Amino acid sequence: MLERIRIVLIGTSHPGNIGGTARAMHNMGLEDLALVAPRCEPITADTVSRASGADALVHNARTVDNLEDAVGDCTLVVGASARSRNLPWPMVTPRELGERLPTELASPQGRVALVFGREDSGLTNTEMQRCHAHVHIPTNPDFSSLNLAAAVQVLAYECRLACQAESPEMQEPDAAPLASHEELEHYFAHLERTLIDIGFHDPDMPRQLMARLRRFTLRAHPERMELNILRGILSATQRQVEHRQDE
Amino acid sequence: MLERIRIVLIGTSHPGNIGGTARAMHNMGLEDLALVAPRCEPITADTVSRASGADALVHNARTVDNLEDAVGDCTLVVGASARSRNLPWPMVTPRELGERLPTELASPQGRVALVFGREDSGLTNTEMQRCHAHVHIPTNPDFSSLNLAAAVQVLAYECRLACQAESPEMQEPDAAPLASHEELEHYFAHLERTLIDIGFHDPDMPRQLMARLRRFTLRAHPERMELNILRGILSATQRQVEHRQDE
Repeated sequence: MLERIRIVLIGTSHPGNIGGTARAMHNMGLEDLALVAPRCEPITADTVSRASGADALVHNARTVDNLEDAVGDCTLVVGASARSRNLPWPMVTPRELGERLPTELASPQGRVALVFGREDSGLTNTEMQRCHAHVHIPTNPDFSSLNLAAAVQVLAYECRLACQAESPEMQEPDAAPLASHEELEHYFAHLERTLIDIGFHDPDMPRQLMARLRRFTLRAHPERMELNILRGILSATQRQVEHRQDE
Repeated sequence: MLERIRIVLIGTSHPGNIGGTARAMHNMGLEDLALVAPRCEPITADTVSRASGADALVHNARTVDNLEDAVGDCTLVVGASARSRNLPWPMVTPRELGERLPTELASPQGRVALVFGREDSGLTNTEMQRCHAHVHIPTNPDFSSLNLAAAVQVLAYECRLACQAESPEMQEPDAAPLASHEELEHYFAHLERTLIDIGFHDPDMPRQLMARLRRFTLRAHPERMELNILRGILSATQRQVEHRQDE
């Protein structure tokens, strides 16, 4: 199961943190690292020193330009976040995240991304809203900013515990395929177009409408077939608008 | 409770690891650090850099010559150990350690020490046998050596969780009102009418459509405000159909 958990670092500034992340991952049996628009040279002497033998993970890491390219194939995308800001998002503790993994990874196409933001500023609101849930590591409220590799360490530790606890015979063989991140994004784009078509949504006055609909939908963790039904409804709605314009 | 948990580092070689330990401790609300015969200058630029604002813990740390002087007042001394060697010792997992803390610290004179060995060689057999129990952080058997500050991070995290669980659970302060059963049923009725209107649903050939949409929606456990948005979308959709029929 651990091989289908990806660590995604966005805009990392310090090579030492990339090395420390690689070490923490490899210690816990995670191997899949993706770097999104790093703000430093990923492989330096600092990286190798902090990786302490795990620098192969950095050499094998995919480097991409944006979050979408790093998580398109994932069925669950979880952002590590200090706390939810204006719009509360589905929030899990690290332990709850671990408890969810066996179910999430029961289907062979299940794939989980854990997303970590910049050392100085974390994830942007847009990035946070691309995540299906947020995970918050409990901290001292007076000193809450964890080192990046330390945050990876805690979540990777919970992943390892969860996967150790899971015995193979407990897996559900016939779990319905879940929608991938990419399929979800296509759905949200289709939904937004349709809401504009029917005059319900004005992109110039968004009033958090799409964010709220995202949050609601992602909380339900849709199966691929459910998403197909929802897109069918959107297409039928759009046909109403088109017919009306034709008449 | 956390103030009565002490982190003890024996023979540390790298000031950066002392700084990283201080940061991990302070992040989790631990403040009591003791250094036993450090093999480096404890406070350097590396310490301060890795401590990232928590270097007061290093300034306040007691430095002593041997383990006995660091843990004499403790009621439970637990050594972090890769694995028990020739002589099997009482062994706990990090989680079991956490579970034990509330009992251990229930008495006001209860005090716990978590002891970490040298970066290169860990604890000596003599030191291990001074410990009341050993704690082993589960790791990848092919790459088991954790960074010192990362090991402190994992155990400090378990301490924080254990102590949080003891205090009254923090409630979400501004949980949004959830939709009632009745509101949900009104929504489903409205949804079904709309799907019939747009020609997507034929009640004579239901094909489990409404059951699937119910299951999806209920899984998300909708808030009242979300349901209002969804009903607004349905009304806007119905207006399209009505306009078309009027024209």
